[in-house]
Amino acid sequence: MAPGEFERIRWLRAAAEGAPVRGGSPAGRLFLGIGDDAALWSPPSGEAAVLTVDAQVEGIHFRRGWLTAGQIGARAVATSASDLAAMAARPGGVLLAMFLPPDTEERFFRDLFRGAANEARRAGLAILGGNLSAGPLAVSVTSVGSARPERAVGRRGARPGDGAYVTGWPGRSRIGRALLEAAGGEPRASRRARGACLRAFRTPRARLAEARYLAERVRPRSMIDVSDGVAQDLGHLLEEGSRRGRALGAVLELSRLAALLEEGGCGALARSLGLDPSATALSGGEDYELLLSAEPEIADRAAREFRRRFGIPLTRIGTVVPQPGLRSEDGRPIHPPGFDHFGE
Amino acid sequence: MAPGEFERIRWLRAAAEGAPVRGGSPAGRLFLGIGDDAALWSPPSGEAAVLTVDAQVEGIHFRRGWLTAGQIGARAVATSASDLAAMAARPGGVLLAMFLPPDTEERFFRDLFRGAANEARRAGLAILGGNLSAGPLAVSVTSVGSARPERAVGRRGARPGDGAYVTGWPGRSRIGRALLEAAGGEPRASRRARGACLRAFRTPRARLAEARYLAERVRPRSMIDVSDGVAQDLGHLLEEGSRRGRALGAVLELSRLAALLEEGGCGALARSLGLDPSATALSGGEDYELLLSAEPEIADRAAREFRRRFGIPLTRIGTVVPQPGLRSEDGRPIHPPGFDHFGE
Repeated sequence: MAPGEFERIRWLRAAAEGAPVRGGSPAGRLFLGIGDDAALWSPPSGEAAVLTVDAQVEGIHFRRGWLTAGQIGARAVATSASDLAAMAARPGGVLLAMFLPPDTEERFFRDLFRGAANEARRAGLAILGGNLSAGPLAVSVTSVGSARPERAVGRRGARPGDGAYVTGWPGRSRIGRALLEAAGGEPRASRRARGACLRAFRTPRARLAEARYLAERVRPRSMIDVSDGVAQDLGHLLEEGSRRGRALGAVLELSRLAALLEEGGCGALARSLGLDPSATALSGGEDYELLLSAEPEIADRAAREFRRRFGIPLTRIGTVVPQPGLRSEDGRPIHPPGFDHFGE
Repeated sequence: MAPGEFERIRWLRAAAEGAPVRGGSPAGRLFLGIGDDAALWSPPSGEAAVLTVDAQVEGIHFRRGWLTAGQIGARAVATSASDLAAMAARPGGVLLAMFLPPDTEERFFRDLFRGAANEARRAGLAILGGNLSAGPLAVSVTSVGSARPERAVGRRGARPGDGAYVTGWPGRSRIGRALLEAAGGEPRASRRARGACLRAFRTPRARLAEARYLAERVRPRSMIDVSDGVAQDLGHLLEEGSRRGRALGAVLELSRLAALLEEGGCGALARSLGLDPSATALSGGEDYELLLSAEPEIADRAAREFRRRFGIPLTRIGTVVPQPGLRSEDGRPIHPPGFDHFGE
């Protein structure tokens, strides 16, 4: 370990101890946090630990000019915690493994950590520990939460007749990324649409509270977070639901997905960037919205209250059917890019 | 996600499901493993989850010519699980975050994972999940275990009069690394010593069973695993034990540390590489042995049985004293390289 790393660990420890989570304390009980060889944490009585890891790597998930140091840290936490949301788990804590090039300035390092710590606090996650290593810029975040095993919402469980629902506005993140890729040459567009799409890419939020609300009110049969795009991730749900010898597919209401993207002017922005709004809503990844299948009667009833409570829509985008593959309402097969793995 | 990544995840899932851990099942109960958004795992009744993360990065912790793909994977698991051992935790499972350059061959990827999975199985850890990302070659491993909160052995707790003990042969890993760095120009040396030092560097083992034995029989007051070197890591124990207004230090029996390294001819090998055996035993890192402080009467009694049971020595290397700093038996201050942070 380089001598400077001890100083950084000392700073981290003080900074982490000074970062209480929102609402007092996270789920479970923390016996021992940062500063020992490992953290000691207990899920609440009757609940199991929910564990997941995700990473953000420079040059793959972001470029340095696209995000501030703080946004890199925050995005790493949010995208990892999004997998807790997908299980409808309660937030517990995070372990942050940071990889920093040797020439990383102190300020960049601290801003990165503060961004991660602030996002953790916002999500109700304690800083349980971490690791600091030299290496190409990357952050790997292990998120820990808790759920009653019989209540956690997995990927399996979709049934024919389920409605397929999505939260928020899928596709915005892809448009935000396209804006950053076109930097300098980007088209004129409504400031509101630009801001919404850039935020979707730069500062996604794990839909933790939304997921628990849905688990309670809508009782999803299956749920996933949208990291690879609505079509891909719906494919995962259908594939998992297809075990036991019955193949599942879905009929998608593409017009509803496209209409979501039109909200706030993002459809026009997509077109001005040369992106097809429908295809972007279907295949654009990294939205970290929730995608679920549920009994339509129950979900439709909850949608209005959901929007009032969380300020984001819950939209039915299709129906699970007992024939494999994705089709549009008029029966045409949908083959979104990158969707080659589905229905094998 | 690149299309090839789905194939890899599918392969990983099948490979992980076919990898039961040693002795049937790990501590705790696994409800849901690889293949969903997150794993669901419960520590055994009355125990808390023990959580830690560590990483191995190409160019920092290893060079590709030094380790096979399988050794890279195994080393990443062992060095992470070593922090579970340092807490005397029972092994539960691991989450593997792998970063692979885009041109990584399928065989390298599979060997890397198999090496990690085999090491996990050997250590009694289930594969709980993971993440696959493009990026420079690195593996970040989150290890999860369990312990009764009142029984876990932390870094705090050292007291004046405690003996300082170490398992195994600290310094061997540093000599192994020096051998690899000198590749081609390495000196002639006993094959046995070469093999022992290369193994110490390439395939360290987390001392999980040893740690639980020590926790039960020796009741260490404080414990840590030797990743930064005996002097540095002893410094951590003394620093943590120094809270509450009393500063701790230690008197070290350097001759015993050096004698450990002479076992099997490693001292001669060190000298032939231009390394001072005493300094190497004191400052060489990455041994992943256990370093603990305990009541000498109890620990001394357990040492013989420990060696018989595990095939490695448990050696007293010094005494905790109520004066800060490290001294040798004849009273001279010891200032090992990199030890600048201690006694501030």
